[in-house]
Amino acid sequence: METLATLAATLGPRNCLTAPDDVAPYAVDWRGVGGATPRAVLRPGSVEEVQAAVRACAADGLAIVPAGGRTGLAGGAVLPPNGPASVVLSLERLNRIRDVDARDFSLVAEAGCIIQHVQEAAAKVGRLFPLSWGAQGSAMVGGALSTNAGGIRTLRWGNARDLVMGLEVVLPDGRVLNDLRRVRKDNSGYALRHLFLGGEGTLGVITAAALRLVPALKRVETAFVAVPSPDAALALFSRMMESGAEVIAFELLIGRCMDIVAKNGIGVRVPLPLGSPWYVMVELAAAHPAVPLREMLEETLGAAAEAGEVLDAAIAENEAQRANIWRIREDWPDCARRECPSVNTDTSVPVSAVPEFCARVEKALAERWPEGRLFALGHAGDGNIHVSLGAPPGMDREAWYARAREAEPMVNAIAVELGGSFSAEHGIGQMKRHAMATHKDRVALDLMRAVKRAIDPEGLMNPGKMLP
Amino acid sequence: METLATLAATLGPRNCLTAPDDVAPYAVDWRGVGGATPRAVLRPGSVEEVQAAVRACAADGLAIVPAGGRTGLAGGAVLPPNGPASVVLSLERLNRIRDVDARDFSLVAEAGCIIQHVQEAAAKVGRLFPLSWGAQGSAMVGGALSTNAGGIRTLRWGNARDLVMGLEVVLPDGRVLNDLRRVRKDNSGYALRHLFLGGEGTLGVITAAALRLVPALKRVETAFVAVPSPDAALALFSRMMESGAEVIAFELLIGRCMDIVAKNGIGVRVPLPLGSPWYVMVELAAAHPAVPLREMLEETLGAAAEAGEVLDAAIAENEAQRANIWRIREDWPDCARRECPSVNTDTSVPVSAVPEFCARVEKALAERWPEGRLFALGHAGDGNIHVSLGAPPGMDREAWYARAREAEPMVNAIAVELGGSFSAEHGIGQMKRHAMATHKDRVALDLMRAVKRAIDPEGLMNPGKMLP
Repeated sequence: METLATLAATLGPRNCLTAPDDVAPYAVDWRGVGGATPRAVLRPGSVEEVQAAVRACAADGLAIVPAGGRTGLAGGAVLPPNGPASVVLSLERLNRIRDVDARDFSLVAEAGCIIQHVQEAAAKVGRLFPLSWGAQGSAMVGGALSTNAGGIRTLRWGNARDLVMGLEVVLPDGRVLNDLRRVRKDNSGYALRHLFLGGEGTLGVITAAALRLVPALKRVETAFVAVPSPDAALALFSRMMESGAEVIAFELLIGRCMDIVAKNGIGVRVPLPLGSPWYVMVELAAAHPAVPLREMLEETLGAAAEAGEVLDAAIAENEAQRANIWRIREDWPDCARRECPSVNTDTSVPVSAVPEFCARVEKALAERWPEGRLFALGHAGDGNIHVSLGAPPGMDREAWYARAREAEPMVNAIAVELGGSFSAEHGIGQMKRHAMATHKDRVALDLMRAVKRAIDPEGLMNPGKMLP
Repeated sequence: METLATLAATLGPRNCLTAPDDVAPYAVDWRGVGGATPRAVLRPGSVEEVQAAVRACAADGLAIVPAGGRTGLAGGAVLPPNGPASVVLSLERLNRIRDVDARDFSLVAEAGCIIQHVQEAAAKVGRLFPLSWGAQGSAMVGGALSTNAGGIRTLRWGNARDLVMGLEVVLPDGRVLNDLRRVRKDNSGYALRHLFLGGEGTLGVITAAALRLVPALKRVETAFVAVPSPDAALALFSRMMESGAEVIAFELLIGRCMDIVAKNGIGVRVPLPLGSPWYVMVELAAAHPAVPLREMLEETLGAAAEAGEVLDAAIAENEAQRANIWRIREDWPDCARRECPSVNTDTSVPVSAVPEFCARVEKALAERWPEGRLFALGHAGDGNIHVSLGAPPGMDREAWYARAREAEPMVNAIAVELGGSFSAEHGIGQMKRHAMATHKDRVALDLMRAVKRAIDPEGLMNPGKMLP
């Protein structure tokens, strides 16, 4: 195609890949989701090159799939199976940190910066970039913002969108929306950036962002706690929130998850005896060493134990023990994969509805698939519990999916009935479009389509994603 | 008009006002801005009545100006001088707090709820609704959200938009966007609510919101500090942020403002001798009584004094002294008005640029209007300094505006040159449209117009506001 030849000249042949072996890695993501093969993989090295690529593709009617670290869990950064002719636009070479300003508590990063590098750049000037999750060593800024990534610390500092002060975006017509201000307050018209944040690349390509930093943490306390029930966990959550400490993370796990981590985890130590029906991981932090954080934690756990909300607790005594607790959380996806195939979900409910959600899900899944194994863990402080239904021993993925695929819509429906969302933090991508079609308010869908038509009238940005 | 007769029947005659005496109060706002007289004032008592009103007006081509407490500073809730035939849609009767959930840290309020009532409802269950500013006793939820209101605590908890989990909106075609979820995480398509938050009623009418609450504060420390310069103030700000305390507010005032408060304030005590070139108000908070907040404050002030950043400081010893410090800030607009007419601005810059901004503004205004008096005070921790140019003694408003009106665009231009905004927290309304036309990125304006056309194709929602 002539467009690709022109782009090879503009970007250099190494940055306009068309050979099957070169293109293949970009056809699948971390999760193994893949659809059609892209016509080419474009790797622009500057905003101007992104503009040139977008303009050339638009002129030729080629669709664009923006991609970063491809660690998403909804298939948003790879082609759908039966979409239009598309290229992958990889932002990996836009990887400069343009500016770090400790006094401003700000950092300007290009879309291809790896999240962990942003964290490190902030730490160097005594600041914290709080966004954090398992894939942070591969995930990139552009993808994190386009999917409004969550993670374990959203309880305290919000999702990705809450950490953005300004954006630079290449629009579907190749123009640049230059809104890269490091300003905390700006009420000058519609908050356009919030369309691109979480927009999954369907309205344009984020090329850079001005990010908020926060003061570095001086003290952290982390505990692993056995609790009798989600209701007890929620009572403990209220106590922690009222303890006066900054509650950074509050994770809930069903006991079975710990059995599987104990069995399949590599180099992970289980901090408490197995056998509790549920466990909680809680992390408190303070920005000053004089804050009596340990006392706050111990007093709160003590009071909760007296009230019957806590069965047992282990407080990390050092950084190694703390790291071990978080490895349980981060290694969970790998441990689960080693155990069995499972049908996964990504729902949220109001925090107060977490106990009812867990109870209804457990009952509904057990009735329909008594052979299935319920896994449930997630960010209880955000009301975001990831429920999975694991296959019985020995059953392969294909067979289990054929039998239990319906577990996902069933869990989604329960979350929505409780006033929650069928898509809490992973986004829609390809995988949740069916749920958008089923559950999303009709008026909201109409508005979204109107916005899409207004900004991407040709429908060339990441087609087949998000909107059903 | 037949439409109004129909609406009088639907809403009741007392809620469809057309007599000149009844309509007149709604033709002006708190600031005294007024334009054309509305054809009618509609006061619906339910979401259904809002829908009926919007549909009837749309059918008849009547434009709608949504209004709440009418305390805005940009003329957004009153008719422009030469707009189309319009009604004022007052949300004042939608004033129910539908739900308060301490465990969820959430509260659902209708658009006509007064901000202070929301604060009180949260306090009753041991929670804090942190949005706070001078007009909170009159301002309503709908207006606060539609203008993305700021105030003195945005440093810690963000602007209004950051405190919203879900919205209910009546769209220009009368349909309801029901997105009133109390969910902290929801990545299911475009974040539509962020279009209406700060949308100044130009895309629809917010009728209710699910708001975030935070744990109640257990301890607060407040200090009034004399500093030699904005640069010193900024150094002090960094120290406070690194002190480990939660910095809730950090306000900067030029010395002249204190002279005027001392002269014109009613029942306000000046905590430090007059004569310092600049002053700072800083408030620290902790959610636990054991946090050594007073020590953090004293140590930080002590270190800053040694470094020459602090000239003198008074720490509030009790609630009365604390209230007195904040009365200085809140009474400033009235004190200034008693002193002289002034040309006002609402700019923000990156926090690190505050000293340069102050210096450049001072120089530019003094050169052009040596007879003018520079007032500068604002939320330095957000980079949001409100600069005003006061008239010389004895000059009336009309004469001063004729001479010094250009001070506003001059200050705006300096803020924009420093990477800032010409409209930090008051919004655009009628008063800042000229600045939108001058300074807003062309691409951003194009996108905003496309969004407006997509959602309000007839242009009946709050015409003559925001978009130039």
